[in-house]
Amino acid sequence: MSNKIITISREFGSGGRTIGRNTADALNINCYDSELIETAAEESGFAKEFISDRGEYVNFGARLASSLNTGRRNYDSPQDCLWKAQKKIILDLAERESCVIVGRCADYILRDKAGCLNVFIHSDIKNRAKRIVEVYGESDRTPEKRIKEKDRHRKAYFRYYTDMEWGDVHNYHIALDSGFLGIDECVRILKELYFKLP
Amino acid sequence: MSNKIITISREFGSGGRTIGRNTADALNINCYDSELIETAAEESGFAKEFISDRGEYVNFGARLASSLNTGRRNYDSPQDCLWKAQKKIILDLAERESCVIVGRCADYILRDKAGCLNVFIHSDIKNRAKRIVEVYGESDRTPEKRIKEKDRHRKAYFRYYTDMEWGDVHNYHIALDSGFLGIDECVRILKELYFKLP
Repeated sequence: MSNKIITISREFGSGGRTIGRNTADALNINCYDSELIETAAEESGFAKEFISDRGEYVNFGARLASSLNTGRRNYDSPQDCLWKAQKKIILDLAERESCVIVGRCADYILRDKAGCLNVFIHSDIKNRAKRIVEVYGESDRTPEKRIKEKDRHRKAYFRYYTDMEWGDVHNYHIALDSGFLGIDECVRILKELYFKLP
Repeated sequence: MSNKIITISREFGSGGRTIGRNTADALNINCYDSELIETAAEESGFAKEFISDRGEYVNFGARLASSLNTGRRNYDSPQDCLWKAQKKIILDLAERESCVIVGRCADYILRDKAGCLNVFIHSDIKNRAKRIVEVYGESDRTPEKRIKEKDRHRKAYFRYYTDMEWGDVHNYHIALDSGFLGIDECVRILKELYFKLP
C-alpha cells in the first residue's frame, strides 16, 4: 500500500496551515510546512532566513542578475537550487510516509502520484484580514495590503515553477471556503476523504 | 428557520446534474433543473424549446439586433426577459422550500441568502468526454468539441448576467473534482454539509 498524502495550497489568512496541522493531528500523521523549510535549509546549505524569505517567492531581479553575470539563460539561481532541494524533499517525504504538506507547490510536484489529495483553502478578504491580525498581530501595513502582497508572491512563484495557475479550481480535487465552512468542518471533510484515498 | 438551498454549478459532463439529483433524493427534497425550465416556460410565455435552447446561452446577435431595431441600448431582449423570469422563479423557490438548484446562475441570484451552499463540480476533460458519450450518446462532433462549446456558452452567459467569472474558486463554498472523488462521494459530502447549514 502506498502512502497517502494531503497537499494544501492556501490563500494567506485563510487558515490553511491550521487546517493542515489539525487534519494531520486528527490522523496521527505529520504535517510539513515550516519543518519542511528547516529540513531544506539543512540539506541544501542555504541560510534558514534565505529559505524562509524566498521559499515561496520568485526573486526576478536576482534571476536576471544571475543570467547576466554568467551570460547563460539557464543558469541555476540560488532560488532555482532551493526549488530543486524542496522538490527532492517533497518527493522523498511522499515515498517515506503518509503526511500533510502545506504549500511549496507540493500539489504540482506530486501530481503523478496516486493516493494524493490536492486541496485549496480560500476565504473572503474580510475573514482573512480579521484572521491575520489575530494570528500574526498588527503591522504598519493594512491587513488587506499584506494579504494582496503575499498572495501575489505565491501566485507568481507557483506560475514560475509549474506553468500553471495558482488557485485555478481545476488544479485541486477539493476547494474549500474556510470562512464559510469553518476550520473544524474543513478538517472533518479532509479527514474523511483521507480514509478513502487509494 | 429559513430554507436550506444547495446550488450546483457544473462543467458539462462532470456529473453535476446527477450529483444534484442524488443529493436531493438522499435529503428527500426537490432538485430543480429542467423542471425549473418548464416552470419558467409556463410563467413567462416563452416556448419551451426557446428556453431550453437559450436558458444558459447568451445570444449576442439577437441582443445586437434588438438594440439596433429600437435605437436603445437597454432594451430587454427576449433573452433578458427569460433571465428575469428565471431569477424570479429561483428567488420564489428559495422562499418556498429547501431544495437543490442546478445551473441557471442560482448561486449568484441567491448570493445574499444565508443557508445557501454554493457548489462547483468539475472534472478533467478525459472523464467528461467518456461520461457525455455514456449519458448523451454519440454525436457527429467529438466529445471534446461538445464539452468546449457547452462550457464556453455557460461561461459567457454567467459573465454576461453576473459580471463574475464562472468556475472562479472564490464564487463557491466548495468545489469538487467528481472524476477523482466519484459521484457518490460528492453526494455524501454535500449531504453532510446540508445538515450544517444555518
